[in-house]
Amino acid sequence: MTQPPPPDERRPANDGPRVAARNRAALVAAAREIYAEHGLDAPMSAIARRAGVGQGVLYRHFPDRAAVATAVLDENVRQIEQAAAAPDMDITQLLGVLTWHQTESAAFISLLHADGAAGGSAVPEYAAGLAARVERALRARLPDGHRLATAKDDLMIAVAMVSGAVIGPTRELRERRAMAAWRLLGVEVGPVRPFGE
Amino acid sequence: MTQPPPPDERRPANDGPRVAARNRAALVAAAREIYAEHGLDAPMSAIARRAGVGQGVLYRHFPDRAAVATAVLDENVRQIEQAAAAPDMDITQLLGVLTWHQTESAAFISLLHADGAAGGSAVPEYAAGLAARVERALRARLPDGHRLATAKDDLMIAVAMVSGAVIGPTRELRERRAMAAWRLLGVEVGPVRPFGE
Repeated sequence: MTQPPPPDERRPANDGPRVAARNRAALVAAAREIYAEHGLDAPMSAIARRAGVGQGVLYRHFPDRAAVATAVLDENVRQIEQAAAAPDMDITQLLGVLTWHQTESAAFISLLHADGAAGGSAVPEYAAGLAARVERALRARLPDGHRLATAKDDLMIAVAMVSGAVIGPTRELRERRAMAAWRLLGVEVGPVRPFGE
Repeated sequence: MTQPPPPDERRPANDGPRVAARNRAALVAAAREIYAEHGLDAPMSAIARRAGVGQGVLYRHFPDRAAVATAVLDENVRQIEQAAAAPDMDITQLLGVLTWHQTESAAFISLLHADGAAGGSAVPEYAAGLAARVERALRARLPDGHRLATAKDDLMIAVAMVSGAVIGPTRELRERRAMAAWRLLGVEVGPVRPFGE
């Protein structure tokens, strides 16, 4: 993870594009950590604090909560898209990459519930678009005859189901529950790891 | 659902136990509706407004959010316990009652995620106890050799998985997704209906 700049490097915004880019990177890294730990409802102030910048700097880069969430979740989704595009990737490995992101990030879990409205607040529009990209990436590697290829909605219902099971205070527990869920679905998945590492 | 008392019947709390009992019933009914629609994060003020009483009356009966949530969810859980205790009940029908509550109430869905901490705020203690009662009720009717009776955690992982799938703006859509989820799990469930109706 990118570290926030030490205090003596913090300067006003008119210090130029280099500082702005560094601040933005620190904010996205901080938001990623905060969202992974607390979900998308985490307060904006916690993100600025973690990044070591003032709230003014945060709001200059990201006018609202949706803008930060998009920047962070876009990175999760891009990694799944990159995995899906890799030459030797099959659906078993690709679902392993998906599952890694599910166990890593409470915010990513919320995203995969994006087409519903059971969770209280209305579904953010940006989230629906990102969830659709995840579906496209998975479907590109889903062979005919796969257990989740029969009925149209099965693939993303299964993903939502695994998301529902991925709860627990530690990463290890969440991964164990995710794998139990895939086993109950009769779907082979793994290894659980980020793409490219 | 119990209707709130009309305005001319609203009286101060020292009007005696009859009014207090009526107010409490109206508050629980209102909270049940509000939670079903918006989940457990719905504001207390919305509950008082729906019940047609002042916030003072609400807080006299329920000192905090957890007290209201317990009263409402306790009713969901009691219905599942009663269903489990009925003489001719089998696990297929009992899971149908559970699924009815899952499609009815966003709050009940949150409850079934109660043993995890992925969703942001810490897990309320009352919720963990209620979720344990749901598990006990289901397990009492789970025959040896059932698909969810093999590994110890499978039963409640499956319930969490179905909860994850039960999203959508309408009751019909939520029920269709719930039944698709049970089908993917290879578990027979139904009919989906409240107990005793």
